[in-house]
Amino acid sequence: MTGQTMNSSIAKWVAVEWGAPISRAWIFGHANQLIDYKILGDGKASLSSRDLEPTVLEAISSHLGDRPISVVCSGMIGGQHDQLKASCTTPCEPIGFDGAYDATTSDPRITIRVLPGVIQTSPADIMHGEELKIAGFIFENPKFDGIICLPGRHTKWVHISAGEIVSFRTFLTGELFALLSEQSKSHQSAKEESWDDIAFEDAMSDTMSSPQNLTFKLFGLRADSMLNGLTTIEARSKLFGMLIGLELSGAKPFWLGQQIAIVGEPGLSRLYESALASLHVPAQVENGERMMLSGFKIAHDKISGDD
Amino acid sequence: MTGQTMNSSIAKWVAVEWGAPISRAWIFGHANQLIDYKILGDGKASLSSRDLEPTVLEAISSHLGDRPISVVCSGMIGGQHDQLKASCTTPCEPIGFDGAYDATTSDPRITIRVLPGVIQTSPADIMHGEELKIAGFIFENPKFDGIICLPGRHTKWVHISAGEIVSFRTFLTGELFALLSEQSKSHQSAKEESWDDIAFEDAMSDTMSSPQNLTFKLFGLRADSMLNGLTTIEARSKLFGMLIGLELSGAKPFWLGQQIAIVGEPGLSRLYESALASLHVPAQVENGERMMLSGFKIAHDKISGDD
Repeated sequence: MTGQTMNSSIAKWVAVEWGAPISRAWIFGHANQLIDYKILGDGKASLSSRDLEPTVLEAISSHLGDRPISVVCSGMIGGQHDQLKASCTTPCEPIGFDGAYDATTSDPRITIRVLPGVIQTSPADIMHGEELKIAGFIFENPKFDGIICLPGRHTKWVHISAGEIVSFRTFLTGELFALLSEQSKSHQSAKEESWDDIAFEDAMSDTMSSPQNLTFKLFGLRADSMLNGLTTIEARSKLFGMLIGLELSGAKPFWLGQQIAIVGEPGLSRLYESALASLHVPAQVENGERMMLSGFKIAHDKISGDD
Repeated sequence: MTGQTMNSSIAKWVAVEWGAPISRAWIFGHANQLIDYKILGDGKASLSSRDLEPTVLEAISSHLGDRPISVVCSGMIGGQHDQLKASCTTPCEPIGFDGAYDATTSDPRITIRVLPGVIQTSPADIMHGEELKIAGFIFENPKFDGIICLPGRHTKWVHISAGEIVSFRTFLTGELFALLSEQSKSHQSAKEESWDDIAFEDAMSDTMSSPQNLTFKLFGLRADSMLNGLTTIEARSKLFGMLIGLELSGAKPFWLGQQIAIVGEPGLSRLYESALASLHVPAQVENGERMMLSGFKIAHDKISGDD
């Protein structure tokens, strides 16, 4: 690398997604171009707030300069009490800048500003990170009025109107899928990405029409594997179909007759898109990471006074 | 201990429950009295079939005599293919003696006879161990015609008629409760046995009336802990209420208008009894271990020709 390239790689600002479940940093240069991307703390899921400054410094060490670099951070940082106090309560704009606070730093080459999450009092619900994707989406779709579905470990359905989060609902779908997949005793070799669309759709529509049968259908997957040669691919597809079917059933007040956008990881978003399509519900699909970085850019501009 | 007591402690036969999730042995003397009880292999959950003979020999070492001791065993032993081949298929008597087989032993002081499980082809389901409790219950209640509920990690609802298992259905309730309890981030100190009956019943009836809301209500427990001070005891009671509510909803074709018996561990059975009572469904409650040992006794008598 030449000296010139080194100069051009000094960061202007850094976006940090903290603990969801791993922590990541996107490093931007002075023309707001992405110059580097890092996974923090070797991808450990259990970083504590005290790890924030050292892991960020390590990740951006080759991009440090003379002036303090602004780090904008989303996620669960600091004590739970402080986080909740800082959070905005629905109905509210996705990013509550009034609640943003500085994380303690000892190195003068960085400042860390933590963005607050969003809470809903009744029914109790909580959001930490998705609000940036929502902010990015609303920035690019300013007239959007409808529902944003953010699929993931804790999938969120968010009612947006006039640029604000009106209400939202979180489903444990992804976490349950992970728990039940790990628990399954089946060790047949199967590529993670393999999928059986028909098994998925059958299980989904079956669960939507009789959600009360979930826990015995879950045991049935194991019994079908043992007795009827159900493959691991079919079992995984059916398991996800059941859980997404239950979710779509519970989220019906959100998607029925509404304009829908799915903002998430492309593979998972496609599954939600096809599930909604089977219910004759069209959806706009947007890349979650792109929307999140757009949200971070809005936050950085606001914090640094560039807007 | 005197020499006389030592003599009287020689075993006649041994009942072994293998891997559910731990393995246990009940050791009986020549008057069929229980003389000892042991947890096998230090309570490890992952014993393999090869561990069967050495762990049983170790457990009964002080009860070995001149004549071979008959060990009667239930559970998953040997290859899956062999187990399934040996199983009886519904409708059938609980213990299918025709399918019983000898486990290979190298020590002449014991013989091990493995009892087969029960399978159901459609909907696919499988039973390994509960059949002994059913056999014991039918022996003590020969005219019973109705439903036996066997609560546990994998709760089973079993339709009994004319002494036979007509059909059954397994629910993942206990396993899901364990997975979700471990996963919960709440670390408030709470005695495991503490319970909130009102939280339990509210969550149960709520889930029965809207089972499709399960996965967002599950996330709601965490949000309620953070935002509204829900205690660990309330959260555990609600979690179990939700899962049992979903189960009772899915098991309705089994319990509605039927004679019901609950056969299980007393604490868990009481929860099922109170859940059914809130639906105005009375139930006979029997101790699961006592019924299992009664079933083992029937099996031992039949195997040894004592009947």
